[in-house]
Amino acid sequence: MKMFTFWRSLASFRVRIALNLKNLLVEYVFVDIDANGQRQDSYRDVNPQMVLPALIDGEGAALFQSIAILEYLDETHPQPPLLPADPRGRARVRGIAMMIACDAHPLLTPRVRQYLGNELKVDDSRRLAWSRHWTSETLKALEARLSSDKETGAFCHGDAPTMADICLAGHVAGAAMMQLDLAPYPTVKRIVTTAMAIPAFAKAHPLAQPDTPEAMRPKPA
Amino acid sequence: MKMFTFWRSLASFRVRIALNLKNLLVEYVFVDIDANGQRQDSYRDVNPQMVLPALIDGEGAALFQSIAILEYLDETHPQPPLLPADPRGRARVRGIAMMIACDAHPLLTPRVRQYLGNELKVDDSRRLAWSRHWTSETLKALEARLSSDKETGAFCHGDAPTMADICLAGHVAGAAMMQLDLAPYPTVKRIVTTAMAIPAFAKAHPLAQPDTPEAMRPKPA
Repeated sequence: MKMFTFWRSLASFRVRIALNLKNLLVEYVFVDIDANGQRQDSYRDVNPQMVLPALIDGEGAALFQSIAILEYLDETHPQPPLLPADPRGRARVRGIAMMIACDAHPLLTPRVRQYLGNELKVDDSRRLAWSRHWTSETLKALEARLSSDKETGAFCHGDAPTMADICLAGHVAGAAMMQLDLAPYPTVKRIVTTAMAIPAFAKAHPLAQPDTPEAMRPKPA
Repeated sequence: MKMFTFWRSLASFRVRIALNLKNLLVEYVFVDIDANGQRQDSYRDVNPQMVLPALIDGEGAALFQSIAILEYLDETHPQPPLLPADPRGRARVRGIAMMIACDAHPLLTPRVRQYLGNELKVDDSRRLAWSRHWTSETLKALEARLSSDKETGAFCHGDAPTMADICLAGHVAGAAMMQLDLAPYPTVKRIVTTAMAIPAFAKAHPLAQPDTPEAMRPKPA
């Protein structure tokens, strides 16, 4: 398999975690969004939407959209599963994943921040406030659900990681980049701490990628 | 089943189409977003995220997030299917659905328009430009994909409607509300025309709901 990825892309982070969990060998192709790499012809031929990630598996066109790729990996490589076995459980896990993938992350992408700055002349501090607002709104909604649903376990759904935890890890990595305090969201914080202790999650983290800029890497304490 | 819906909600539109396609009997509960109905305690108890739609099926908690609900309906009522049978086809259909459900629709919701107006003091004409911009960007990406992929048929994927057409119908209904010309997107236009000729799609349309305001209903020609 060949994956088109960028260290900071939270949608790429999701697919990297799934590939690691399923122990799949993959060649990474790094697309530098900060240099508009996703708008070059070479990548446009891979994904005409010009967004990351994309995954090539054998012959045939590239797979696109991170959640669709997670579902594909789960159908073609079922172990360990990213979804529970029962339809209600699957709906809950997918619903939590989409609270993040649909209702939060698209508001936080570089293309949106660029439009706010270039077209609407929103300054840096108000753009940061925008990002923190939508990230916090979703953290509140996630905490309300995860803290009250009986299905919540060590992870978002029971005691094994699912697609919901994969998306949650990305959302919290984004929150950390904007210095948001997780104290008001203790259930979210507990679950993400548990998830990030798994090597498949840790190795996929934005700050631990081959294309992560040296200055962004965590310093030894 | 009981569905919480609002006429203009494009995520509700998706679930209404799926329920109609699968010929499922459902009781609608109307939640007026224009009157902040989704923020009342009665609905917060149904969905702590306070967004539409939600679906109650028998005992147990409400299902949430439109795409997760479509997947659930497809697993519990497989005929007619909303996804093709092969993993690659399923990935393509889900990917097209998420180009809309993830990358377009969340930018167009009332809560985002309210933040732009109230917090960022963006006036009405620039808010309309924002909505038209993100809607057009996605129409361009959809047209690029649908016009070039060999899997495109009478519908987004082959000759039967799928989850991709359901999301496309909503996206184009939104484009119509903002008077966007579909001429630059002939493949999109052709597919949506085909889909909207199906009664399950037509009956679910935002302008044909019991809670659609009288002034919004199409006038006889």
